[in-house]
This record gives sequence, structure tokens and C-alpha cells, in this order.
Amino acid sequence: MMRVAESLGLGADDLVPFGHDKAKVRLDVLERPRTRPEPGRLILVSAITPTKAGEGKTTTSIGLADALTADGQSACLALREPSIGPCMGVKGGGTGGGRSRLTPSDDINLHFTGDMHAVTAAHNLLAATLDNHLHHGNALDIDPQRVAWRRVLDQNDRSLRNAIIGLGGVNQGIPRESGFDITAASEVMAMLCLADGPEDLRRRLDRTLVGLNRRGEAVTAKDLAVTGALMALLRDAMLPNLVQTTEGAPAIVHGGPFANIAHGCNSVIATRMALQLADWAVTEAGFGFDLGAEKFFDIKCAGAGLDPAAVVLVATVRALKLHGGVRFKDLDRPDPEAVERGLPNLTKHLENVAAFGKPAIVAINRFGADTEAEIAVVLKHCEGLGIPCAASTHFAEGGAGAVALSRLVREAAQGATEGFQPLYQSSDSLPDKISAVASRIYGADGIRLTKRARRDLKDIERLGWAHLPICVAKTQSSLSDDPRRRGRPQHIQVT
Amino acid sequence: MMRVAESLGLGADDLVPFGHDKAKVRLDVLERPRTRPEPGRLILVSAITPTKAGEGKTTTSIGLADALTADGQSACLALREPSIGPCMGVKGGGTGGGRSRLTPSDDINLHFTGDMHAVTAAHNLLAATLDNHLHHGNALDIDPQRVAWRRVLDQNDRSLRNAIIGLGGVNQGIPRESGFDITAASEVMAMLCLADGPEDLRRRLDRTLVGLNRRGEAVTAKDLAVTGALMALLRDAMLPNLVQTTEGAPAIVHGGPFANIAHGCNSVIATRMALQLADWAVTEAGFGFDLGAEKFFDIKCAGAGLDPAAVVLVATVRALKLHGGVRFKDLDRPDPEAVERGLPNLTKHLENVAAFGKPAIVAINRFGADTEAEIAVVLKHCEGLGIPCAASTHFAEGGAGAVALSRLVREAAQGATEGFQPLYQSSDSLPDKISAVASRIYGADGIRLTKRARRDLKDIERLGWAHLPICVAKTQSSLSDDPRRRGRPQHIQVT
Amino acid sequence: MMRVAESLGLGADDLVPFGHDKAKVRLDVLERPRTRPEPGRLILVSAITPTKAGEGKTTTSIGLADALTADGQSACLALREPSIGPCMGVKGGGTGGGRSRLTPSDDINLHFTGDMHAVTAAHNLLAATLDNHLHHGNALDIDPQRVAWRRVLDQNDRSLRNAIIGLGGVNQGIPRESGFDITAASEVMAMLCLADGPEDLRRRLDRTLVGLNRRGEAVTAKDLAVTGALMALLRDAMLPNLVQTTEGAPAIVHGGPFANIAHGCNSVIATRMALQLADWAVTEAGFGFDLGAEKFFDIKCAGAGLDPAAVVLVATVRALKLHGGVRFKDLDRPDPEAVERGLPNLTKHLENVAAFGKPAIVAINRFGADTEAEIAVVLKHCEGLGIPCAASTHFAEGGAGAVALSRLVREAAQGATEGFQPLYQSSDSLPDKISAVASRIYGADGIRLTKRARRDLKDIERLGWAHLPICVAKTQSSLSDDPRRRGRPQHIQVT
Amino acid sequence: MMRVAESLGLGADDLVPFGHDKAKVRLDVLERPRTRPEPGRLILVSAITPTKAGEGKTTTSIGLADALTADGQSACLALREPSIGPCMGVKGGGTGGGRSRLTPSDDINLHFTGDMHAVTAAHNLLAATLDNHLHHGNALDIDPQRVAWRRVLDQNDRSLRNAIIGLGGVNQGIPRESGFDITAASEVMAMLCLADGPEDLRRRLDRTLVGLNRRGEAVTAKDLAVTGALMALLRDAMLPNLVQTTEGAPAIVHGGPFANIAHGCNSVIATRMALQLADWAVTEAGFGFDLGAEKFFDIKCAGAGLDPAAVVLVATVRALKLHGGVRFKDLDRPDPEAVERGLPNLTKHLENVAAFGKPAIVAINRFGADTEAEIAVVLKHCEGLGIPCAASTHFAEGGAGAVALSRLVREAAQGATEGFQPLYQSSDSLPDKISAVASRIYGADGIRLTKRARRDLKDIERLGWAHLPICVAKTQSSLSDDPRRRGRPQHIQVT
Repeated sequence: MMRVAESLGLGADDLVPFGHDKAKVRLDVLERPRTRPEPGRLILVSAITPTKAGEGKTTTSIGLADALTADGQSACLALREPSIGPCMGVKGGGTGGGRSRLTPSDDINLHFTGDMHAVTAAHNLLAATLDNHLHHGNALDIDPQRVAWRRVLDQNDRSLRNAIIGLGGVNQGIPRESGFDITAASEVMAMLCLADGPEDLRRRLDRTLVGLNRRGEAVTAKDLAVTGALMALLRDAMLPNLVQTTEGAPAIVHGGPFANIAHGCNSVIATRMALQLADWAVTEAGFGFDLGAEKFFDIKCAGAGLDPAAVVLVATVRALKLHGGVRFKDLDRPDPEAVERGLPNLTKHLENVAAFGKPAIVAINRFGADTEAEIAVVLKHCEGLGIPCAASTHFAEGGAGAVALSRLVREAAQGATEGFQPLYQSSDSLPDKISAVASRIYGADGIRLTKRARRDLKDIERLGWAHLPICVAKTQSSLSDDPRRRGRPQHIQVT
Repeated sequence: MMRVAESLGLGADDLVPFGHDKAKVRLDVLERPRTRPEPGRLILVSAITPTKAGEGKTTTSIGLADALTADGQSACLALREPSIGPCMGVKGGGTGGGRSRLTPSDDINLHFTGDMHAVTAAHNLLAATLDNHLHHGNALDIDPQRVAWRRVLDQNDRSLRNAIIGLGGVNQGIPRESGFDITAASEVMAMLCLADGPEDLRRRLDRTLVGLNRRGEAVTAKDLAVTGALMALLRDAMLPNLVQTTEGAPAIVHGGPFANIAHGCNSVIATRMALQLADWAVTEAGFGFDLGAEKFFDIKCAGAGLDPAAVVLVATVRALKLHGGVRFKDLDRPDPEAVERGLPNLTKHLENVAAFGKPAIVAINRFGADTEAEIAVVLKHCEGLGIPCAASTHFAEGGAGAVALSRLVREAAQGATEGFQPLYQSSDSLPDKISAVASRIYGADGIRLTKRARRDLKDIERLGWAHLPICVAKTQSSLSDDPRRRGRPQHIQVT
Repeated sequence: MMRVAESLGLGADDLVPFGHDKAKVRLDVLERPRTRPEPGRLILVSAITPTKAGEGKTTTSIGLADALTADGQSACLALREPSIGPCMGVKGGGTGGGRSRLTPSDDINLHFTGDMHAVTAAHNLLAATLDNHLHHGNALDIDPQRVAWRRVLDQNDRSLRNAIIGLGGVNQGIPRESGFDITAASEVMAMLCLADGPEDLRRRLDRTLVGLNRRGEAVTAKDLAVTGALMALLRDAMLPNLVQTTEGAPAIVHGGPFANIAHGCNSVIATRMALQLADWAVTEAGFGFDLGAEKFFDIKCAGAGLDPAAVVLVATVRALKLHGGVRFKDLDRPDPEAVERGLPNLTKHLENVAAFGKPAIVAINRFGADTEAEIAVVLKHCEGLGIPCAASTHFAEGGAGAVALSRLVREAAQGATEGFQPLYQSSDSLPDKISAVASRIYGADGIRLTKRARRDLKDIERLGWAHLPICVAKTQSSLSDDPRRRGRPQHIQVT
Repeated sequence: MMRVAESLGLGADDLVPFGHDKAKVRLDVLERPRTRPEPGRLILVSAITPTKAGEGKTTTSIGLADALTADGQSACLALREPSIGPCMGVKGGGTGGGRSRLTPSDDINLHFTGDMHAVTAAHNLLAATLDNHLHHGNALDIDPQRVAWRRVLDQNDRSLRNAIIGLGGVNQGIPRESGFDITAASEVMAMLCLADGPEDLRRRLDRTLVGLNRRGEAVTAKDLAVTGALMALLRDAMLPNLVQTTEGAPAIVHGGPFANIAHGCNSVIATRMALQLADWAVTEAGFGFDLGAEKFFDIKCAGAGLDPAAVVLVATVRALKLHGGVRFKDLDRPDPEAVERGLPNLTKHLENVAAFGKPAIVAINRFGADTEAEIAVVLKHCEGLGIPCAASTHFAEGGAGAVALSRLVREAAQGATEGFQPLYQSSDSLPDKISAVASRIYGADGIRLTKRARRDLKDIERLGWAHLPICVAKTQSSLSDDPRRRGRPQHIQVT
């Protein structure tokens, strides 16, 4: 542990150890003057529209960091914490794979340093306080049927999605329809990841919307006087966690919101710390660029003043074949023509990168069954577009397999201009913001808001939140030019 | 941290650090030969029937350990972990108080080393697996209305006590009446505390009753094939936690079942480890001796082969006045006569200690408002009974205030005979076991089982669990010779 | 139809026909001067503690009326309307049996003249109005968890007993725990049966308790401004129904509250009308005398100023054998000794009749398997007590089989004194009233009120209803000297 | 009563009296040879798209029947029974108004002859039987989450729409999400109205779908062996009810399904009986022609072999102004131009009448505030289309006000050809049937089925019901060329 900490210039006093191979890093590290000669550069790893197995953003990020480190660069990963729920289910962890992995992966996939549990406890304390308030006279006159705050567990528990609580008669609370979400979807998680420090987190917690009163006004966590207790529960969860790759590159793993329903990136604090302590900070945003990276730019970077130097777009031959019309079970069969047919998906994502004013590098995450002919199709296509592209074998070979990629990244980052072009301004109207995302990123002709969506947007404006960025919940398995996948925004971020 | 570890003969490799002032201790420590010349002696701290503020068992235990240490003895505490739920509520933590305290108390009262969260996660994974099984065809033919396994959260959340889950139609599980308990009441917690090691815990988890099938047969966690995942979640929670008192005495704090509904003592492993590493292991069982210590003897000691050398019975002048008829709000007023009138409560508890064949020492936990006259009433009474008794001021003065008590304890332990007298044999019938506890400890004339209780006991016999010890859930605020407080056993321990 | 109406002195204009063999009778009939020379005498038919097949009160009542009619007397039955629910179930109707039957029995057992449906509709309109009030702002500040008004259906529908209603979100009402009872248990039914006319019914409806507001005050149907609509729905249900026995005796069948949970007699209006139109009015109160007849006297007669001339106590040899220790399936076996052993039950009921100051006649409702020796045991016992007793074969032989009984009844009624002795005064305290019923009728040593019962009684006093009679819900299958069957009053009549 | 019965050739023995002014008519009347010289002619009264106050179909029907009767014709109404629910609410009854009314209107609007209660009882008995079956072992292996049979009450009770039933533990049924509809929406009501006699009703009841078993197969009422009991409960409800208008014309009022969600016409038996007993049978189908009359033709007439001779299309100047863009509250202001602008609605409905091959007559239901100029706009428009049209003042003047209308109707009916053109054949696919209704009647460009609708239609085909007619639930307040009002069929008639 100390070896990797020292590689970042951290001493024992900067760390709070959790076992011998994990530690939290104290936040005052962020307040010191940067000691490295050059400013840190942020590399964003995203992907084309993925297959259901994923494109390999995490392994590519790890491989890239290992390659940079092996090349003598100072690099540090900034990644999300996995959720226990899916780990116990099918997907099998969020710590990379093959020879591009974090360690100790079992610990990270299970309780890790308790951040998920802390978020769960804080989220549910707010819920319990709210129901307790309803039970004890409801001085705030909250409408029990307009409570917006559910409960969470770090578990896939279908039976808890919809529940009626508060049963058992007069001493057991107010009967209500409610339910549980997974902790990764908690607004507390989103706030923890977007906050730039404890004071900012406290302000965000204060203004958390828990429901409406009977006059239609917002009721917040502050009104329930519970922020202090939430902060106590989140005290340690605020500190980023330091682990390492199996090749010894440092990795700050902190925060784990989902990317289909929430903004889907690790914490702002983790990204900042990686930039503070190393020359290269490698981070990721998923699922595809349309879903995760749009939010990365418009929500996270715009809010936190971050500015990535370059974007690595991970693509697999398999996904391109899928977009070229091949069925999932037939993806192992060589089919360069199908790869060709799938290229428009890649092109659209590259255009999206360009829309934010950033250089892109395509990383072909190579699988064993991929043929040279198929790889060549992609390389040639990128060449035609003037986009640097490398086939990368980090999964099988670790950092050594990503050296070519790492060189392209360094070159691209060198030439990048500062600042990025946001999709919309905070002063734009909410429908305009939604429209901007849908038409410019998803490629839609326009948006059509349902009656209910219009009413919800009106409510949001009325409550004074029109200036906030939007967070679209959308399928990850399509760029969504299908009109049935457009439509009404189901989740408006109110952090 | 290392200083206190070294005082117990532990090295850095024996520990898994959690921050700089908490650590888990590896279980292989238990397998080494004992290095100290004499066998460890176990001192049980219990109390008379308490006021609602508690009698001060924890502060007395800490004061006693501090006094022993100050006196040059090798002593180690073995205590329960607090639950976040009540901490966030009124009571304010379980780490002692005044100058008899554990440190770091805030950490211990909140997430500590994550044991509560691990128990919560394991408990709820079993619940989710069960509901998932019901949803996916129910191959085990479990009767949804005879599911015995609820969910838990480490929180006082009234609205979750009774809930209907599985709502939302055909894809959202099976509608059922269920609810949440607090984690301290989880059977997983009970199992963790009674297990003597990982393999024993696995066996206990395997046979956990989750419900009955439609033929009335037991369905267990093993039938659901989930024990491996539960063990993974509980891997670290099995390791006892080492902290210290503010005066530097070592404290192993591990496991936190409630004492009114569960057996209410710290883990067997923690007690064993304290006995292994020190000459004196000081532990507690609460609330009153009738409720907590009976279970300590008949459930914990009988199962784990433990044998306390002496019992410290904590009494306050305030509680005795309460038993003497004074109202709670008037307890500050000097009233030696009321103390006198309350003494039968103390006497009955002393008889109960004797029923187990163990020497008792009365510790008067002295409050500032207590008068000499009141103290004298108790001292004289004990003298008459031939029971050693000391007034102890550890709350105000730390270990120095408990020196007299510690001397009496050492003397009493010297003369103790080995072994204790259990209240009942495992071969006794269940009604006989209940009757033994009720009549010999609670002082009841007899028991009357309701129709439902008789049916439940029949079920338990039919399922082959008649040999198990019983765990009576009972009010802590009375010795319960009132027949209305007797009756049907609501919780039968099925570990 | 007209023949039987004319036998009561009624013309076509007095009737509202329902088909050709059922009619409602207009209420102005009650306001005419009585035309018969002598005042009508009321005969109450009750029973000893019955077997689960019932003792045959209804057939005995019908047989008695048929025998009186055959004997040239002017007699009219006043009986309850059956409930569809149990008819569709096991018991098979409430219109007598064998040769002692009402006609048209199918119609009477099903929709009859719609009275049950009208009560159902009125009861549920009040419930819907209440929930609507909660939904639309709740101007009366009713506590949704203290709503006392459930819904009813004339059906045994287990799944509706406990339900959560008001689900589906913000436009679908307020979520509440509630449920359905059977119409025969509706308070509207009780009010309809105790009212002495439309204006009295309106007053009773007005003051119907539907729940408490948040200050603990009563909220009534009047507060919901719904009485007018309820009266419209009950307009025809107020009119008693006239049918006849298969031998042509008139029968007024009106009102059907249950006797275990409600007061269990036909309507006051029906009894009054039978007394107005005939010399002998034969009515019944069930189940046993302890349960039904106590309420008949203390609730119905005391409230309506009725005064029975004599009480027929129906006993079967089978029930006496059951009380003598024989099992239900062995009741066909001759066993005069068992009859002898069962006689104390009869004796206690006879004492209870005497407690109200009324003469009793024992009617042995003879079954085919009864032996002369068994009958003789009963006859001799009654002779010893000085109670007239006749074995009656009306089931097999119709009115002819009840002639002896009818003669004894006429003799007993001749000698009866006016007025009866109520068990308690309206000014007695509620616990005293309960105690009077329990000790004097059930033969209990005393009563013990649970904490909850005491609180409920306090509430009732606070709300100003201490002067009301009490209505004890109790098992029908025991005289209940078993202390487990005493206890807390579950239903306090609030009509 | 007898006078109006005799006018139809009925004797006292043909009737079952309910009071002095209502009677049920025995079904054997239908089996006698027709005694009148000419075959009965059926006149359907429908309307243009109505305002929320309705266009006055019922008053027009009554006025038309009164006018025919006054003109010496033999005419008989066939109308629906009102539902108590809405009567207790805002609309105020279904017995006409002004001088075109049925009598006794209060009785008809409340319990009438108990038909609604009988349907309620039968519907709920089936539900209770089903839940009882689930509770007692579920031998049919019904999937509790695929139960399709809810409960009904003849009441607008918002809080019962969505409920969870079967709560209270192991003896109280199976917890399920379910709820209550209004009796007018009951499938039992639909079956009662479509059956051509008791045997047909029994067959329809037998095949009633109550849910699916776990293998996806249909479970019917027959499988639950409950049809006999349902038939007993519906025995009298099968008989049509005879009342009269205030001017003495006979009216058969029987069956009351809603027209927005069910097929919305009186019973087939009632229509047949009116045709049997009179020369003119006047019936109605609502709300607008698109919603009610389409079902009248394709469901009722096609199934029962009925063939209307002419269609009266009721229009008000107010509705035409509404369709011409005037707001509801401004409809009293004279505005002939707005009437003109609203005429396309009338035109489309007239085209729809023609689509079925039937002659139309437009009846302008005249209100006091209508101006001559406005009336003239409609008259002129109809003249241009060659459609007979009369302004009718029956509301203010009774039958005398509808004489002109009645003459036009007689003329139109004289020239009608036999038979009508159904919109689709029973052999058409379900999507084709839906498409035919949507495009030909509603004027839609096409239909788009949601995924769920496609799945439901597949299920219906799989279960063998593709040959059935369809019953579209749709808003009554628009002809629905708005694409948002098209879409998925929510209710597929499974009678």
C-alpha cells in the first residue's frame, strides 16, 4: 500500500488504512499546492453503443494507466466503486478483468471501505425521518402521496421495488405506497459524487427535495433538520479510496452512481485528486458516449470545472458487427462486411465527441476471435476520418498491450485546446436542454413531451430549478434514433 | 493501536487495521497455545432490574477493566457493538460514558468496522433470494404466507415494521405481508455471535429456517443454496474488533444482538479471544440479570463451554428507590427508606446468581446525588446476606473509582468453583424449559401457554428442534412476577 | 297473499306487493287503533347452549305459531331475514325446515324484498362519502387511522376481511387499512332493527360514529351530511315484509342482525306490527338465551318498551348429551345418563329466564333418534323445578306436533306479571354493565378488562355514551364460565 | 300498472308485481306467437358527439314514444336501467327529464327491482369463490397475479378502485392486488344484456374468463363450479321490467352496462320483448353514435339478429357550437356561425349511420336558449345532405313536441331495406377488426398497437377467442381522430 501511495507523493499520515491493501485519502491532500511540474491532464474513456457484455471501458482505462506507468509516466486512475447488488448477480464485479484489473478485487466488489453502506444508511435515515415526521403530527404539512423520497438497499431485490409501508395501525406510521431502489441510484450517491467537498455536500443535502407539501411547495432535508446526521453518516464516505492495479498503478476508486438513470461517473473529488497527484488522470463514463459522456461533460465537468484533454472511444469488433445486423450469438463468426455496416454507430459517437470540441482516439478492445481483416476495417475507417486508432490487447497482455494506445493518447492530449463546448447553457429552458441532448447527441428529429412530462417540467420551473442541468434516463442499448425510445424525461436531476 | 495490541501479545500481522485506532484481529490468534501462565478468568457484569436510563453495566465493566489494568493485572473487555439505529435516536451510543469510555467512540457508534452493515447485507440477501425463489416458479413449494424471514435495517424505522411487498404486478414478485426489523434483532447477528468459528457459522447459516413449505416442512437457507454468498458477505464481520478504553485497557467489541428479544451478549469469539489474551476477561449481559444473564448462561455459556468465575451485579440507588415506589422524576430526592423498600429486587437477583452456582459481588454504581445514608442501606443489606459489595465511582473517576470493586472481584473469583448449574437440560421438554426459566428466575407460580403457543411448540418439536435452548422475549422493566407479563414465548431461538 | 293479509285485518292498500307471495306492509298500519279486543302478547323463543346444528328455535317458533293458529288463536310470527352469505355456504337458509317452514323459502333466502341490499348500499355509501371526504381536503380533520366505519357485503368473502384501500396514487384516495364485514353485522342493520320509525332511524343515522378527528372527537354521519341519501336508500327497507308458513300462519320477517356480534333479533317495527295485528306474537332471539335473549331484553325490549309474556326455552336431547360429555359424532347413540349430566346447562338458562322475572316453558325439540327414556329425563327434571315442559314434534308433524307446547305457552302467559327486570340501569357505569352481564348471565366470577378495553371504555365515556346498553360479542358455543372466553368487550353498541 | 300492461296485451299472470307501479314480465311472453298484424320495427336513437351534459337521447326516445302513442301507434320503449352510483353523484338519474320522463322515477333510479343488486351479488360471489379456491389449495393452479376478475359495487367509490385484499395472515386468503369496478361495468351485466334467455346466460357464465392458470390456460367460472349459484342469484334479474312514461307509454327498462367501457345498451331480451309486444320499439345507444351505436350494431344486433329500421341522430345546437369552438360556459350565447363550424361532427356521424346501410333522421333537441337562426343552420345543412331533420321540443312539451319527429321516423322506417352492413366479419383478425372500427368510424388513419396490446391480442387468439366482436373503450368526448386517443384496446369483450 505504502509503495503506491508514495508513487503519488502521499505519506502514511495522508491515509486512513482499511486492511493492508486499501486506504482512504484525507481531503486536505487536495488543499496543498500541486508539486508536479506540469498540470494534470484528464483522459476520458468512453465507448460506442455497447453489446450487453460491455465494450471494456474499465479494462481499457486500467490498461491505459498501466501502459502510461510502464512508459515512465505518472498516471492515476479515477474509477467508480462497484455495487454489491449486481456483483451477487450476473455481471460479476466492476474491477476490470483479465490482466487489466484492480486489486484486491474481492474486497472492492463487496463491502470495500463501506461507502455504499454509508450512502444507504444516510438515504434511509432521511426516509425514516420523513415518515416519522408524517407520523408525529406532520408539522410541515407534507402530502403523503407526493413524497418523492423512497428507500434504497445495495441489492437487487425485486420484491421491494413497490411496497406499501406504514401498516399495522395507529402506532406504526402512515400507510403509503413507496418502495426501494438500488443504492447506486440514490440521490445521496449522486450528491456525494458531484460535491466538491464537505461544505458543498452539506448544501446539496440541505436542498434535497423529499416531497411537496399540500400547497405544492418543496420540502427539503433541511426542513426536516436532518442534514447534520446525514453528514455524520457520510463523513468517511467523502474520502476517496486508494487501491492499485495488479501492475501497481495507483487507482482512486470512489463513488458509484448508475449511468442509465444517474450521471454515472466516479466522484468529482476522486477525479480532482487524481489530477492533483499525477500527470495523467484516466477516468471513464459509461455506458456509451451518448449516455454517460454527455452527462460527464454537461453535469460533472460543467459543474466542477473539469476539462478533459482527450477522449478515448472504446469499440469492439463484436459491437460493430451487432450494429451491422449480426445476432448476439453469432458474433464470434468473422464478418468484416458486418463490421463495415456497423461503422455508422462509431461515426456518430465520434461526431458527438467533436461536438464537445475534444480530440478523440479510438481504442479497439481486441478479443481473441477478432480477425485481422475485421480490425483492418476499423483502422481504415478511422484513418479516413483522420481519427487516431489503435487495437489494444490489454485484456490479454496488461499494460504492455496498450502501449500503442497510450502513445496516441499522449499525442492527442498534447494538441488539445483548453475548455469544452457545453451542449446547452444553464439559462436555456428545460425543454430546450432536453431538445439539445436529444437532437444533437441522440440524433433525434425533435422531442415530444407527454402531458405529464410537461406538467412535471412546469413544476420544476415553478420550484425554481430551471437552471439545473438535465439528466436523461435512457436505454443504453441504442443511440436511440428510434422514435419510441425518445420522449418523456423520466428523471430530472435535482441535486 | 499497536501499544494496546502489544499489551495483549499481538503483532501487526495479527491485525487488519481500520483507520489508526481500530483493528480487526485475525482468527488464527485463537488457535495458538495460550502464552500466559494462568487460565483466563471470565467476569460477568449484569444488573438488577434497571430504570429506563440503565444501571451502568457498560461503564462498570469499563471501570473494572481499567481498575484491574491500573492494578497491574492483565485484563481485556469483551463487549457488544452498538447499533446505529438507537444511536441516531435518544439513547446516545453504547460506548460507556463519563470517564469510563471506549475510544474512538464516534466511530464505534456509527459504522465502526462495518459488521452491522455486513449482517444487514447478508440477512437481506437471504430475503431477496427467498422472494426471488417464490417469483421464479417456487420449486421448493414454499408457502408465501408461512415465510418466517423478514428483512432488517440498522435503523429505527417505524414505517417499515409492517409492509406489503412484491407489488406492481406480474413481474414484481409475489405480494406478501412482511416487514423490517432492526439489524440487532437479526438471526444472522445471533448466529454470528454464537458461532465458534467460520465452519460453525456456515453450519448455522445452512440450517436457518426461512419458512415452511406447503407440507409444513422446514425450508432452510441451505435449500436456497445461498450460504456461500452469505459467508462471503460475513467474512470480515467474523473477525473481532480491537479498540481500547480512554485509560488504555484493551477492549474487544464484537457482535450486537438485543437482549430483550435476542440473547444479548457479544460474540463467543470475542469472549474466547479476551480469555485467550488476558488473565481477566470482563463481559456484560443485559438488561437485568433475569433477562440477559439467564440467556448468557443457558444459551451462550452452555453452548460455547464458557464458565464465568464471578458475577458483578450492578445496582443503583436510583433503581432501588424506583422499586421502592418512588416515581422516576423524583429519584433525585434522598430517601433511604425507599431504597430499603426496593431491596427485594436486589435480593431476588442475588438468588438468581446463586441458582447458577456462582459468587456475586454487588457494585453500587454511584451517582452524584446519592447520599451516604442511601449507600449505607445497600451495604448493610449485602453484609447481612454475606455478599461482598462496593460503591463504585468509575463514572466520575475512571478506573481509580473502581479499585475497591476490582479487589472484591479478584477475591471472589479466587474462591469460585468450576462449572455452573444450568437451569434446564437440553433433553427437557420445551414447556419444561420455559417453566424452569419462568418459575426459577422470574419467580412465577407457573406458566400458561396460549393455544397458539402450544401449537407453535408442537411445530418446533415436530421439526426436530426440541433439544434447543429457549430464548424468552420479555420486558426488561420488571422481574415479571406479574402474570400478564408471562405467557407465550414469542421468539424461539432456532440457531 | 291476500288471504293471509286479511287474516291480520290488512287490505290491499296496506301492502306493497313483491311478486305474488311476498309484500311489504305500510308503516301507517302501526298508527291505527288496535282493533282486537285483547292486547297482543309477546312470546320469546330462545334456547339452551346449542350444538353447532342449532337447537331449532326457528322451527319451534313456526310450529308454535301454526299450533296456535290451528287452535283458533290469532297468532303472527316476527322473525329475522336470512343473509345470502351463509345461505350460499353451509347452513342452508333461515326459513325453518321440515314441516315448520316459511314460504316462499327460496325467495326469502336470496334477495327477498331487497332489504339486505339496501342496507349494504346505505352502509357503503357512508363509507364512500367518508373516503371521499378524506380525499377532498378532509375539512373535518378526520384521522384516517381512526376511521371506525368499514364496508359490508352480503357475502362470506374471506379475502375482503382485511384490505388496503385507496391505492393507485394521488387521484385514487387515501391509502388506509380497512376491510369488509358481512351485511348482517352492519351497524346500519342494527339501527334499522332498533329504530321505532323513520324519524328515529334518521336520528340514529345522524349520530352514527364513523371515526375520530385528530383531536379525538367523534365524527358522525351527520357531519358528513349524508343522512338524507341514506334514508332514501333505506326508504323501503324500513317496511316489514309479510309472508306465511306452509300451514298459512302469517309471518313478518324483517331485519337480520347477527346474534354473536350484534343484538340478533328481528326489527322492533316487525315485533310491534305482529303485536298490533294478532293476539300472539311469536319471536325468537338466538343463539342461546345467554347470548341472544339477554340482548333481546336489555337492548331491544328496554329500548322499545316491549314486554314478553313468556319465554319458550328450546332444548334438544342431543345438546344435553353434548353438555353431558358426548362427542358430536356420537350424539345419535341413546344415553339417558349423558342427558342427565347435561341438565345443568338447562338449569342455568332457566335461572337466567327467571332473573328477568319471566315464566319459562321448556320445549324439547324432538329428533327421530331420541328415546323415550331420554325425553323422560328432561321432563322429570323440569317437573322437579316446577317448569312446564313439552316434547314437540313440529319438525316432523307441523303445527299438530306443537299443540301441547302451545297450550303450556298460553297457560304460562296467562299468569305472567307485567314488566321485566333489566340486568342493569342505563346510569350504571360501563364496567358495571359488563360485569352484570358476565356474572349474572354467564356465571362468571368477575371481569378483567385489558388495558385496551379500559382505554376504549374511557373513550366511550369521554364521548358521552356511557348511558348506552352494552352488546357483548361472545362465542355461542358455551355459557362461558371458562375465563378465557370472558374478557374484553369487542363491540360496544353505539346506535 | 295493469292499464299499460294491457296496452301491450299482457295479463296479470304475465307480470311479477314490484309495488303498484313496476312489474317484471315473465319470459314465456317471448315464446308466444306474435299477435300484432305487422312485424315490430326497431328505431335506434343515438347522438352526435355530446357535451358533458349529454345530447338528450333518453328524453328524445321517450318523446318519440309518447308522440307515436299519441298518434295512435303501438309503441314501446326499450331502455337501460340507471346505476345508483352516478345517481347519488352529479348526473341525477337516467329516467329522462322535463316532460319526457319515466315513472316512478325515484324507484327506478334507486333499487328499482333489484337487478343491479343481483348482478353485484353474482359478480362478487364469483370473485369470492375464486379467492376461496386460491386459499384452499388452488387445485386449478390459478396464477394469483393473472386473475382477471375483480369485484363490483353499484357505487362511485374511488378508494376501492385499487386495493390489496387477502391480508391478515394465513387464514385470511391470498394477498393480491385487485379492486372494485362499478356494477354497470361488470361482465355479468354485459352477459345479462347480451343473453337471449336463461340457457344462453348459463352458457355465457360458464365460459366467463376469471384468470389464467400457471400454464397460461384460461380458467372459467365453470371450472369453479359456480354457475348454478350465479343463475340462482340472477333468476329474477333476467326478467325485463315494465314501467311507463308520464304520458302512459309503456317502457321496458332492463340492463344497464356503461357505453364507454362496455357495449352500453339495454338487454337483448328487453328489445325483443318490445318488438314482440308493440309495432314500434324505440331504443337508444350511447354516448355518441361512434361509441355506442357501433357496438349496438356490431355486438348486440350482430349477435342477437336484430335489425333497426332507422336511426335517429340527436343533435343539440349547444353541442354543435362546442364543436365549432365555443367554450362550454359560453354555449348560451347565440352564435349561428359557430353552429355552422360544428356541422362536420354531425356530418361524420351521418356518414357512420350510412356505413351500416341505415336511414338517418336528425332530431334537433331544442333548448330554450336556441335561436331560430341557429336551428335554421342545422335544418339547411340536413336538407343539403338529403337527410330528414326536425327540431323537437319534447323536453318542454312532452310527446306533442315530438310529433314532427315521429312522422319523419315513420316515413324513414317505411323505406328501409332489411339487414345491415356490419363493419367487420367475425372471421377477420382482431387487429383488422380494431382497424375497421378506428378507420371507418373514428376516422383514424390507422392503428398502432403497443407491445402490450399485441401480446394481449396474441393471448386472445391463443385462447381461441379471435372470432369474437371487439368492444373498444374510448373517450366519449371526441370522435377521436386525435392520434393520442387511438392505440391500444383496453377492454376486449370476452362474453
